[in-house]
Amino acid sequence: MSETLLSSRNLAFELYEVLDAEALTRRERFAEHNRETFDAALTTARGIAETLFAPHNRKNDEHEPQYVDGAAQLIPEVKPAVDAFLAAGFLNATRDFEAGGMQLPNLLSQACFAHFQAANAATSSYPFLTMGAANLIESFGSAEQKRRFLQPMIEGRCFGTMALTEPHAGSSLADIRTRAEPAADGSYRLRGNKIFISAGDHPLSENIVHMVLAKLPDAPPGVKGISLFIVPKFLVDEDGNLGPRNDVTLAGLFHKMGWRGTTSTALNFGDNGQCVGYLVGQPHQGLSYMFQMMNEARIGVGMGAVMLGYAGYLYSLDYARNRPQGRQPDGKNPSSPQVAIVEHADVRRMLLAQKAYVEGAFDLGLYAARLFDDTQTLASAAERAQALELLDLLTPIVKSWPSEFCLKANELAVQILGGHGYTRDYPVEQYYRDNRLNPIHEGTHGIQSLDLLGRKVAMNGGAALKRLLRLILDCCQRAAAFESLSALRQPLEQLLARLQAVTLALLGDLMSGKVNRGLANSALYLKVFGHTVIGWRWLEQAIRAEQGLAGGQAADRDFYQGKLQAARYFLTWEVPACQHELALLEARDATCLDMRDAWF
Amino acid sequence: MSETLLSSRNLAFELYEVLDAEALTRRERFAEHNRETFDAALTTARGIAETLFAPHNRKNDEHEPQYVDGAAQLIPEVKPAVDAFLAAGFLNATRDFEAGGMQLPNLLSQACFAHFQAANAATSSYPFLTMGAANLIESFGSAEQKRRFLQPMIEGRCFGTMALTEPHAGSSLADIRTRAEPAADGSYRLRGNKIFISAGDHPLSENIVHMVLAKLPDAPPGVKGISLFIVPKFLVDEDGNLGPRNDVTLAGLFHKMGWRGTTSTALNFGDNGQCVGYLVGQPHQGLSYMFQMMNEARIGVGMGAVMLGYAGYLYSLDYARNRPQGRQPDGKNPSSPQVAIVEHADVRRMLLAQKAYVEGAFDLGLYAARLFDDTQTLASAAERAQALELLDLLTPIVKSWPSEFCLKANELAVQILGGHGYTRDYPVEQYYRDNRLNPIHEGTHGIQSLDLLGRKVAMNGGAALKRLLRLILDCCQRAAAFESLSALRQPLEQLLARLQAVTLALLGDLMSGKVNRGLANSALYLKVFGHTVIGWRWLEQAIRAEQGLAGGQAADRDFYQGKLQAARYFLTWEVPACQHELALLEARDATCLDMRDAWF
Repeated sequence: MSETLLSSRNLAFELYEVLDAEALTRRERFAEHNRETFDAALTTARGIAETLFAPHNRKNDEHEPQYVDGAAQLIPEVKPAVDAFLAAGFLNATRDFEAGGMQLPNLLSQACFAHFQAANAATSSYPFLTMGAANLIESFGSAEQKRRFLQPMIEGRCFGTMALTEPHAGSSLADIRTRAEPAADGSYRLRGNKIFISAGDHPLSENIVHMVLAKLPDAPPGVKGISLFIVPKFLVDEDGNLGPRNDVTLAGLFHKMGWRGTTSTALNFGDNGQCVGYLVGQPHQGLSYMFQMMNEARIGVGMGAVMLGYAGYLYSLDYARNRPQGRQPDGKNPSSPQVAIVEHADVRRMLLAQKAYVEGAFDLGLYAARLFDDTQTLASAAERAQALELLDLLTPIVKSWPSEFCLKANELAVQILGGHGYTRDYPVEQYYRDNRLNPIHEGTHGIQSLDLLGRKVAMNGGAALKRLLRLILDCCQRAAAFESLSALRQPLEQLLARLQAVTLALLGDLMSGKVNRGLANSALYLKVFGHTVIGWRWLEQAIRAEQGLAGGQAADRDFYQGKLQAARYFLTWEVPACQHELALLEARDATCLDMRDAWF
Repeated sequence: MSETLLSSRNLAFELYEVLDAEALTRRERFAEHNRETFDAALTTARGIAETLFAPHNRKNDEHEPQYVDGAAQLIPEVKPAVDAFLAAGFLNATRDFEAGGMQLPNLLSQACFAHFQAANAATSSYPFLTMGAANLIESFGSAEQKRRFLQPMIEGRCFGTMALTEPHAGSSLADIRTRAEPAADGSYRLRGNKIFISAGDHPLSENIVHMVLAKLPDAPPGVKGISLFIVPKFLVDEDGNLGPRNDVTLAGLFHKMGWRGTTSTALNFGDNGQCVGYLVGQPHQGLSYMFQMMNEARIGVGMGAVMLGYAGYLYSLDYARNRPQGRQPDGKNPSSPQVAIVEHADVRRMLLAQKAYVEGAFDLGLYAARLFDDTQTLASAAERAQALELLDLLTPIVKSWPSEFCLKANELAVQILGGHGYTRDYPVEQYYRDNRLNPIHEGTHGIQSLDLLGRKVAMNGGAALKRLLRLILDCCQRAAAFESLSALRQPLEQLLARLQAVTLALLGDLMSGKVNRGLANSALYLKVFGHTVIGWRWLEQAIRAEQGLAGGQAADRDFYQGKLQAARYFLTWEVPACQHELALLEARDATCLDMRDAWF
């Protein structure tokens, strides 16, 4: 049977030929691991994903969660799947052995999780959000908070959410209105409304911990006045025993275009003035805490977008290989048999584009995951800080690029299946609907573009940007050793040089106070920056493919040839097209900035 | 209240400032019309669309047709809407007065119909398909067939379908297997299976006439052996009275991602050997008949795509004007009020792109509709033939360009609404799902690209292409009179010159037998050709806007400024980006052609 979630050959290529996962086992933290333990975890993940997650992916879509008597009900298949995930230890894959974890590198944890994301985006969201909330308490919670709230999450008895968005403010967190008043016992009483809270209610765990952004009475205005609170669905006593319901109510469910199996909730905090919350860390530091864990969440969202793209790519590839239709342009004899549509050049274009998007983004997502390991386990503090800076810089790309281009991959998968692709009898239309969420949640495309150009590239005097440019140039230099790669390398070098100049010019605008002008075309900048990064990752893959071909076994020839062809597609079809966007950025084109509301 | 279907100011601009609809009233056929009769028809269309079509657009989506006892059931709101459409005469808008029609120009009929397409794509499909089938019988049917089958359609008692696609063949009509055997009475007995037949069953009319492609026993293989048959759902006697059910059965309904209100059916013809059909015109000429009416159908599909884009654009514009969120980059004081999101440059970019796509494509669709009038009513046969050639050439663009770029507009509309846009509480996600069908039905994107490059540009020694190029150059020359338009004109001129050279080179390939190579990148050719055409239409609109500004009233200034800004967006942001695609075409880039199945 064809693989349906991801290509295990490609995953092995990424882990062991491109990203050198085995080198991680030489670090102290991962010393008890080796390729066998890595592969065992991956095999377990694949098995659970295929047998318990994938089979109810369509049913999740057809039977979305229902609001019944103030609670959200799910289809019965979700809980056994999530329970198997928990039992296999994936929730705590990266946690210490002694805390009940597998102490796996983040790279491997992400690679395992990718299988669940491909199999069932909606069901995988429940553990995903729990991992994020748990990591937040682990990083910033008090010892008592860890005992009362983190430990049940580690044990899988309590799930988590992130509650940021409010109805009147959306992306503008500076304007949230949820208030937290100190109570006599040292806890707080919250009052406010949050929307779009994924996994905000469900019957999968005995309790749910909401990580809520709110403002204290003395909070300064804006983002500097936001604090972070633990707000449990059920109160928990000092020994960790469940008490009565907290004053958090499920106001309703949102009915989405896709990703339907994950509850998207409106939550009311403190309708009766009795909503108990616990301050995490210091007052007014909530947003910085949230953003520290946002790196992980955004990598996760990016990988989720990749995996929807990947599943669609594999499905449409299989379909194209097995669907006879039409003939080659030079073989129109109607008495000859029809050919499989994979033989049509335009279908190959749509498959090749999908391959370039999903395998390029998959590489970047795993690269970011490995970088996260570097932030935790490199030998010196200086190296760890450098890795973190680079990860910070890349995060807007890791989140946004797959959200845009793996959605485009899904659009192509639908097209390859034609009329069938448009029906709910085939999975590709659901991937397309599911993936449309990714450019919106965890920071929209627009937010990512402002984060990149307005904050990240200039961080610490541009240190991370310089480091990234050095990495890309180094890759180009290594590629120069392969004459066969010169046509692939040159478009990247041309893009890189101009991107550097454009970046300096735009930062000049920002520093000289021309902020609106400098940021006006941030969407173009995000696109070009993303294509530069993915172009780099494809050139890196092409180098490894050439090395594989040189040393490799005959069985792998086709695999490496495919890598080279996808790299060729991306670097010669897509990368040079960015030159025009750079020209617009260079010229500070003001077409959008000058547009007036009244002119529409 | 904001307009929700289309901008009536923009429609007036198209009809009376760009396309000179009043000039048509000087033609004999339209001599009884004038601007008042045109506007009265438009007002009626808008009224019915707003009051009877739009209100059940979401309900159509939520309650898709059900298969009950061999028949398709619809929600009850569809029939009154369609009945009002029929009663107002829109089904026969272009038909002769004496045949009960309004004898309107096709341009006006299309402009009226656009309102229904924007209001409710699914419900508007039923009359749309009936108009297509009726025109086919009118053009090619015998007098008897017209009496028995066309007349009830004109009277709205009988609806129609087009039945082309079969399960094993999809786009490859050469391979259809439905057979038609001659019967003793001069009729035929059909046997075969068709899928994706829109409006193939419903309770809206007392009868349904299927226009079916099938093969006679002596048919030569391939597309030259296809004949066209009338196959009624209920048999009709010589006086037009309904008889028993014909042997056509509803095998099932397809469940689609969007466009759910229109039944998409699987039909079985002749399961019991008793399926009566009537040959239309000559044997083996069926495909050419079907293609002659396909011009209309494809313009209609293109306009349908435009109108879904248009409705989404207007909705997201209204939302952006009324949704406060965040502040300008240079005004971050959190105590200041939030601004409407239309003030953000990136939101303006997304609105401006939508405007450029939908108003550019709207102009092209109406231009094509007017050209259709020219094919019918220009004075000389030579002029009419020239118009038809040009329409033939433009048809793949009219169909495919809006299907791709107005879908992209819908994607942007969802993005502007953020998390709300992803929910079914707002209409934009449905527009996005509905519009995803348009690049597939009535000839996929791939089919359109082969039609354009493989057939249309070389037709009659390239006569139509030369005529189009002359029209575009003429537009550029007129634009040269406005210094303000030089930055808009130049990118189009640069594209045009290179497109001409590339076209010659590719036709050289095709004529020298390098067919696979010449057609390998037809998708790129379609994209660049389409952008050239839409760029031309935007330059034309910009000229009219400049003229309007020069002579105009103060109230119109904003409208014309908006036109100029959208033209600027399209011609300076989008058109120059095609240069890279032209370079790939010039180089006969073989990346996709060389890709091997085994390498994926």
